[in-house]
Amino acid sequence: MTVAPVDAGDIAHWDAEADVVIAGYGIAGVSAAIEAARAGAEVVVLERTGGWGGAAALAGGFVYLGGGTPIQKACGFEDSVDNMRTFLCAAMGPGADEDRVADYCAGSLEHFDWLVDCGVPFKPSFWPEPGWEPPDDDGLMYTGGENAFPYNRIAVPAPRGHVPQMQNKRTGEQGGGYMLMKPLVDTATALGVRSIVDTRVQRLVVNSNGRVVGIIARQYGTELAVRARRGVVLATGSFAYNESMVARYAPRIAGRPAASIEEHDGVAIQMAQALGADLAHIDATEVAFLVDPQLIVRGILVNGRGQRYVAEDTYPGRIGQLTLYQQDDTAFLVLDADAHEQAMGARSATPFLLRPPTWVCETVADLESEIGLPTGSLQSTVAAYNDGAVKGDDPLLHKKPEWLRPIGTPVGAIDLRGNTGGFTLGGLHTSLSAEVLHVSGEPIPGLFAAGRATAGLAAWGYASGISLGDGSFYGRRAGRTAATA
Amino acid sequence: MTVAPVDAGDIAHWDAEADVVIAGYGIAGVSAAIEAARAGAEVVVLERTGGWGGAAALAGGFVYLGGGTPIQKACGFEDSVDNMRTFLCAAMGPGADEDRVADYCAGSLEHFDWLVDCGVPFKPSFWPEPGWEPPDDDGLMYTGGENAFPYNRIAVPAPRGHVPQMQNKRTGEQGGGYMLMKPLVDTATALGVRSIVDTRVQRLVVNSNGRVVGIIARQYGTELAVRARRGVVLATGSFAYNESMVARYAPRIAGRPAASIEEHDGVAIQMAQALGADLAHIDATEVAFLVDPQLIVRGILVNGRGQRYVAEDTYPGRIGQLTLYQQDDTAFLVLDADAHEQAMGARSATPFLLRPPTWVCETVADLESEIGLPTGSLQSTVAAYNDGAVKGDDPLLHKKPEWLRPIGTPVGAIDLRGNTGGFTLGGLHTSLSAEVLHVSGEPIPGLFAAGRATAGLAAWGYASGISLGDGSFYGRRAGRTAATA
Repeated sequence: MTVAPVDAGDIAHWDAEADVVIAGYGIAGVSAAIEAARAGAEVVVLERTGGWGGAAALAGGFVYLGGGTPIQKACGFEDSVDNMRTFLCAAMGPGADEDRVADYCAGSLEHFDWLVDCGVPFKPSFWPEPGWEPPDDDGLMYTGGENAFPYNRIAVPAPRGHVPQMQNKRTGEQGGGYMLMKPLVDTATALGVRSIVDTRVQRLVVNSNGRVVGIIARQYGTELAVRARRGVVLATGSFAYNESMVARYAPRIAGRPAASIEEHDGVAIQMAQALGADLAHIDATEVAFLVDPQLIVRGILVNGRGQRYVAEDTYPGRIGQLTLYQQDDTAFLVLDADAHEQAMGARSATPFLLRPPTWVCETVADLESEIGLPTGSLQSTVAAYNDGAVKGDDPLLHKKPEWLRPIGTPVGAIDLRGNTGGFTLGGLHTSLSAEVLHVSGEPIPGLFAAGRATAGLAAWGYASGISLGDGSFYGRRAGRTAATA
Repeated sequence: MTVAPVDAGDIAHWDAEADVVIAGYGIAGVSAAIEAARAGAEVVVLERTGGWGGAAALAGGFVYLGGGTPIQKACGFEDSVDNMRTFLCAAMGPGADEDRVADYCAGSLEHFDWLVDCGVPFKPSFWPEPGWEPPDDDGLMYTGGENAFPYNRIAVPAPRGHVPQMQNKRTGEQGGGYMLMKPLVDTATALGVRSIVDTRVQRLVVNSNGRVVGIIARQYGTELAVRARRGVVLATGSFAYNESMVARYAPRIAGRPAASIEEHDGVAIQMAQALGADLAHIDATEVAFLVDPQLIVRGILVNGRGQRYVAEDTYPGRIGQLTLYQQDDTAFLVLDADAHEQAMGARSATPFLLRPPTWVCETVADLESEIGLPTGSLQSTVAAYNDGAVKGDDPLLHKKPEWLRPIGTPVGAIDLRGNTGGFTLGGLHTSLSAEVLHVSGEPIPGLFAAGRATAGLAAWGYASGISLGDGSFYGRRAGRTAATA
């Protein structure tokens, strides 16, 4: 299927038109729609599935916000724009786009207010436990390792994962992502935003001046030409489910997409590339580590050489990235029977992420041999860890004292090789105004993008809430810029 | 400066023309020129500098060849196409393009014959020592860690770094890269290939059917329009010196390009992107580790946690990659005074890569403290290494017994933090026929590419000789395909 642009002169009839045409009705699309409509534009959203939602509605719902939000303050945390920026520059790198990080941090408080104004509910309560998500309806959590080594020595720890208040979470009725999307879509609808569903975008329409003036889409086998009087916004999500793109750009997660949806086929990225659009950080990926943090924090993680490599009390997505990219996707979680039992009973544990031990032995030497680790390696690692734990100290990785306890016997290990999956973080290179940039550096007239079809804050690292965060933040920019283009 | 394509209808006058127009007179360009000329095409090469050479002429000159070349056989090494492929699939990954690797391996013997037929001299003698290059005129060397862990357990070790016989190497007169390029350029010249020097390519010229029919270049401030009757071949090298591209695609080597030349500005990659060309493995980089392997092999390398992470007797470029990407560019080489002295006297040592120890101490505990490593970490690592070394065994990393010797005192360490540099390996996505592929998947008519402006064999890993290898191999393909297009 070609994604090459179509000449506007070849369009005999427009099937629909609006000032701003948005492809994709997830977090970036709805944010763009609201702001474009508020700027006075007529807006239509083309959505591939049967309705709004995108990956966002199925996500945990974290939005990464800080700088001293009312929720942070109510929960007793100090934060500032500078402090947030310092953390993100360290955690999103190496190679994080400092201008974009600074821009995002400077606008974070206003963005929180905007979400609340649109009706997104945040409960001012903090969930303090290790985990991927709060078990109930708490509104704030650490989601990037801010309070763990090394970041707790780089910036003042502050939780910034803001999750909309959920209803009946334990029954799975209305998760955080749904509670984020629903009020935003209601807001857009009230502003007159229309949507055309079951419609896949395929090609951009360009006039003789090189300006994007529409989009070709397909609905049940019928081609639709949709005219955009002011601009097109691409908000179709990542390329995690485009096998060919993953093979060339992010082969580490090939065959193992996770935490994404199959609609994330990268087509809008390619449609823009066909016009000469540039890419950025196209190799970056989020990496899920599919085991409960309540287990991880109570043990030690070792690589294929029996060496520890990460503070076990940090953000599990960071553990996933370090495991996949730096340890050849090889990890073993070593913990004793007591620790395993405690984790199994933790209130916030997620049943499908709890695991029985793969091996259980009477001694560390036996376990080392069972796993097949180099002779002496795990014994030396456990001995050093236990020596420190007795004193409440972890000189190697600075796990916090509250989680330090010598590993006793019987001792087991969970085999976590090949235990990662991920979604892609890179995409179109955009300006801070959400214009899609040509490889020559200038904006492509009439073309805008946001969300995971673009490179956002992450150059390598990640924190939960970054995608819904930069997707909504730059989605708004895209809508405003397109409406006034 | 725009790299947007120019409409052929806007060209009033062609300043030059040929059947095949090649941008760049390095290894890929000269190989393309020879094959295009032999296929009956009139060929002109546009070169940015004052003459032929490119990065190739300044390089060590290794060409990665195998499968049982006459040089391998004369030196007593067995190899096969399958064995070579098995090694490359492991060493160029994760994500190595298996079809391309298989194609390259299948053609390797014929490619060796082609080089020899063009007059490239290879001396059938093997240099067995660790190092970046042979000290004299030997023609064969291990250049990818084939004989070290883990690759020596994946494929039968065979050296494949073929270096043209040098003249007066120790005085720097005619290095391997020069001895590779000179006979190839002589061959091209004898075939009637013309070159236009001091000429920078800027934009591609496209006709109304989307076919590339020429190129716009600049010579001393004057614009030249050069018509290509059959095709344009892009062979301008990497983007290592394009700061903006490095920041977005390969930020780990930002500010530290190495082993490349300043002409590697990525412009041809962008010119093709402006036509919708796709990219592949754009994040991949070669990584030089700037210390003599004669030092490395006699010590142990530890990371910032005092842990070993790589067999010290492997290819130093692999050590560089693992250090930069997996150890946060942090390495310390620990070795005792005797080992340091032996390395300084090694016949193949390179003077500017030899280093004095940064620290020297009476005990490992003191050294650990001086370096600032976690308490106990280095002591434990050295004790384990020494335990094995006494028995001729390295259970952790399988360094070969010939290099195992317990580390005694006085003991020192060389600070190798921030000691890497590199050039980029990714680029345009091409077919095995060297056609530049559009993001839609089909070839862009009239446009071909080879060398480091394209993604070659490496998806992540590397071996010395891969760039001159795939540059010459697919350069030939580009020339043939373009001449018959």
